[in-house]
Amino acid sequence: MTTPTELYETHSDLLDQAIRAASARDYWSAFPESPSKSVYGDEAAPEGERAFRALLGKPFPIEVPGADGTVSTERSPYGVELGVSYPKADPLAVIAAARAATPAWRAVGPQGRAGVAVEIIKRINARSFEMAHAVQHTTGQAFVMAFQAGGPHAQDRALEAVAVALAASTRIPVTSEWAKPQRGGDPLRLAKTSTAVGRGVGLVIGCTTFPTWNSYPGLFASLVTGNPVIVKPHPGAVLPLAITVQICREVLSEAGLSPDLVTLAVEEPGDGIAATLATHPDVRIVDFTGSSEFGNWLEANARQAVVYTEKSGLNTVIVDSTADYKGLLRNLAFSLSLYSGQMCTTPQNILVPQGGIETDAGHRSVEKFGADLSAALDKLLGDPARAAGTLGAIVNDGVLARLTEAGGAASVIHPSAEVADEQHPGATIRTPVVVRLDAADDKAYTREWFGPVSFVIATESTPHSLQIFTETVRAHGALTAMVHSTSPDVLAAAREAALDAGVHLAENLTGGVFVNQTAAFSDLHGSGANPAATASLSDDYFVSGRFFTVQSRHHVPAAETTDA
Amino acid sequence: MTTPTELYETHSDLLDQAIRAASARDYWSAFPESPSKSVYGDEAAPEGERAFRALLGKPFPIEVPGADGTVSTERSPYGVELGVSYPKADPLAVIAAARAATPAWRAVGPQGRAGVAVEIIKRINARSFEMAHAVQHTTGQAFVMAFQAGGPHAQDRALEAVAVALAASTRIPVTSEWAKPQRGGDPLRLAKTSTAVGRGVGLVIGCTTFPTWNSYPGLFASLVTGNPVIVKPHPGAVLPLAITVQICREVLSEAGLSPDLVTLAVEEPGDGIAATLATHPDVRIVDFTGSSEFGNWLEANARQAVVYTEKSGLNTVIVDSTADYKGLLRNLAFSLSLYSGQMCTTPQNILVPQGGIETDAGHRSVEKFGADLSAALDKLLGDPARAAGTLGAIVNDGVLARLTEAGGAASVIHPSAEVADEQHPGATIRTPVVVRLDAADDKAYTREWFGPVSFVIATESTPHSLQIFTETVRAHGALTAMVHSTSPDVLAAAREAALDAGVHLAENLTGGVFVNQTAAFSDLHGSGANPAATASLSDDYFVSGRFFTVQSRHHVPAAETTDA
Repeated sequence: MTTPTELYETHSDLLDQAIRAASARDYWSAFPESPSKSVYGDEAAPEGERAFRALLGKPFPIEVPGADGTVSTERSPYGVELGVSYPKADPLAVIAAARAATPAWRAVGPQGRAGVAVEIIKRINARSFEMAHAVQHTTGQAFVMAFQAGGPHAQDRALEAVAVALAASTRIPVTSEWAKPQRGGDPLRLAKTSTAVGRGVGLVIGCTTFPTWNSYPGLFASLVTGNPVIVKPHPGAVLPLAITVQICREVLSEAGLSPDLVTLAVEEPGDGIAATLATHPDVRIVDFTGSSEFGNWLEANARQAVVYTEKSGLNTVIVDSTADYKGLLRNLAFSLSLYSGQMCTTPQNILVPQGGIETDAGHRSVEKFGADLSAALDKLLGDPARAAGTLGAIVNDGVLARLTEAGGAASVIHPSAEVADEQHPGATIRTPVVVRLDAADDKAYTREWFGPVSFVIATESTPHSLQIFTETVRAHGALTAMVHSTSPDVLAAAREAALDAGVHLAENLTGGVFVNQTAAFSDLHGSGANPAATASLSDDYFVSGRFFTVQSRHHVPAAETTDA
Repeated sequence: MTTPTELYETHSDLLDQAIRAASARDYWSAFPESPSKSVYGDEAAPEGERAFRALLGKPFPIEVPGADGTVSTERSPYGVELGVSYPKADPLAVIAAARAATPAWRAVGPQGRAGVAVEIIKRINARSFEMAHAVQHTTGQAFVMAFQAGGPHAQDRALEAVAVALAASTRIPVTSEWAKPQRGGDPLRLAKTSTAVGRGVGLVIGCTTFPTWNSYPGLFASLVTGNPVIVKPHPGAVLPLAITVQICREVLSEAGLSPDLVTLAVEEPGDGIAATLATHPDVRIVDFTGSSEFGNWLEANARQAVVYTEKSGLNTVIVDSTADYKGLLRNLAFSLSLYSGQMCTTPQNILVPQGGIETDAGHRSVEKFGADLSAALDKLLGDPARAAGTLGAIVNDGVLARLTEAGGAASVIHPSAEVADEQHPGATIRTPVVVRLDAADDKAYTREWFGPVSFVIATESTPHSLQIFTETVRAHGALTAMVHSTSPDVLAAAREAALDAGVHLAENLTGGVFVNQTAAFSDLHGSGANPAATASLSDDYFVSGRFFTVQSRHHVPAAETTDA
């Protein structure tokens, strides 16, 4: 057995670095993003693939308190038969098990809990290749992206949440001495103790596109602040979180703690277990990533809990002018194509003044800009093998339906096409559709078209673009925004507009950084300041509602008083 | 004009000290609590009284945007005719004025806002004697308590909130540089800017017993984090907050800012302006102190806002044994009597094992304990002048009605008596009532009897007391708890029970510290972990929901890059 205190000692240097990085917000990463042999060793890739293959067609080896029967709900967007089954959860049983495990977890204290958390994350890192396959074949992400976003990037976000939670829950010192001077007498002396107490059972509701990346911050923030966590995966992407929970339980058991501090709650689609769990009186923290519909329902109905949601929005690009037109097009085409636009951060609404834009390649009308963007997409996605590596596969029929609907518009600039993947003949792969709209077509562009659907929207002018940007994001939310301009005044106005809209802004990205990517320890993801999310991954607000500080105080007996 | 930046520079030493103290949680105070001439000068007391008298019978000099007519609703529990009238607020007008003032307030930044806030607090401190009279004649607190709790203690809590808010909103650096190494090339470099953006219009709903102390933390936390604030006083205690808002507006104007960043919203009783304001889409932060009924209504209905409430609860004392019986009785009698038990922190439920308790004065049965507590109350309150100074006056008819109802019980241990105050013949002053109950009488003791009503409740044993304590506080809330025991095991069990119940615990207070008092910068007030309050005054959770951090990022042009 390795105690939580020993795990903290083992990982305290890493935790100190992570806390420093989360505070400085400069570049830092704990887990290498490259799936290369030089980093992870010669055997990691084949071993990971073997481990993944060994899971297929079988019951997944995990214990779930009170489980009743099995469930098998996943299908690979790459057409591979998965056939993994999971114990079907009984909501009351997992909640009861979580509650029973809580007092011992509180007694471990923040440092010990952080030590356990880091041990879990490091073991997840060691299984990154296995995880990459699990993510690829549930989300449809191409392998390298599945490795990075589902593995090291998610692990960095997990460690960031651990660091922020540890810093926040240790900010008030455990002990303090209070000595109030009294006129003509000894001071009044009290010894005080402060204890971080978890809010209650946490529930993490995973999504189908980024099951690990979007779930880890809530999972680890809740754990470190003293709460047990029930992990409810999306029926379409269970395996990545099942592996995660398996590792959590393994580490907790080895540390002498109840594995039921982290449990897996799998359901048949339509069972509604998320709603049952989220509204139970003992569930006091809910983390959710997914549709605005269910996110808003949770906010309205999980009234006994603090609810952190990340929902849909209207990610917006304001194009005013550029000094690097080719770079703009290349960068934007990649942002629209990466994982078929199935990222919560993919741009949807591209606002261009109807008079056109000035570029280093000369004036460009809206029509020409649309044609150039279409050509940039064709160039990026012209080679099927390379296209498949960028696009990944379409995660489900809902995305496909929106793609078809958008493709039926009269003003399609770039039609969607099928792409064949030699490696995966059963894969569903499509290039993005881009549609030309006018500012008046707000019925179309003020809803989220999750997937590879974007709009080039002609506005009256850049100030009009900024106005549409602010109004639509304030009303409907956004996780990302970008502005392209060579004018310092326009950039300044865009920054103010982004503050008004409450959305993070990227300016003039024309190189190797993309608006849909955020870096742990530096970029916040979501702001809380617009309807797309209630909090940022991961700032103090994201962690501070997960625990309370409870104090006790008593007179200092003479023997305890230090002589002055 | 003194700019916010200049105000920050003027007050930065004090802010640094306050941040240090709020972090260390040891003894610190910025504002002397003694109303003595040696501290505040010879003229402060008479000048303060003159200033107060000059306000009586007149319209209060304050501007309120869109005000319509006047309102006069206060009556002094000391029987003094007040006759101050205030502009009657139009909710939509104050909200519109607050919104219009917001962008300039955001641009000031956290430090400048904290500078403005400290200047306000210092000017409030300079008017502490005037404020003491205003608090005394609205709340019924005796003068010295009104001076301390309504003046310096409230000012310390205000400064604490400023310090915690400033620290929290500057934790993420305004600028950072991100440089991600690239294999075989220059690093990717981005310059990043982080801006604290207020959540939106704040609403502070004051209470009738501690109009300043309970309102200042929310008011100043919202201001410093970039929000305008509408202050809605209780109709029974307007003047202390009217003076406060007057000072806020004066300082804001002098700093070149819109005074409408802080407005006063006064109503006729029954106008329901608090509900109208609290549910307006632009009101995004609500701070409330008062009844559980309206607090719960706000939590359920002010869905567009983050809601911080402090409500009613069952403050509990567990009596197991003591090494200082006289001290216990003296301390407890004072806690029950101070301000006639009209503190949210006054003990109500005193749990005593039916077999009695061991003390340094020998074994005491429950009956004898009750008789001794009654005698201690009589001793404390035997002299009418001294009694009036401790008890203050009864704030309103609701308290009087509960006192009468409790006094009609069959098992009264200590009946309530009228006390005459020579200085204020019209004052309504009463001693506390104490009633003997059994554990089975939970219908009586599981509701809050706000005012001078307490119960000595016989339980089966100390473990039974702890069980009742945990169960009743988990269900109904509490702001304070105390245990008296000479047994380390009982103390340890009481600490665990307090953590389970989520309430701060005082142990064996027998001297000059009382369970109903908390010290700013050291004791948290409320925990959030039980139904009596949603947050602590003032920890990170209390401030972190009042703002968001919004980032922008752009490539670092070659000229901006520092050569290595």
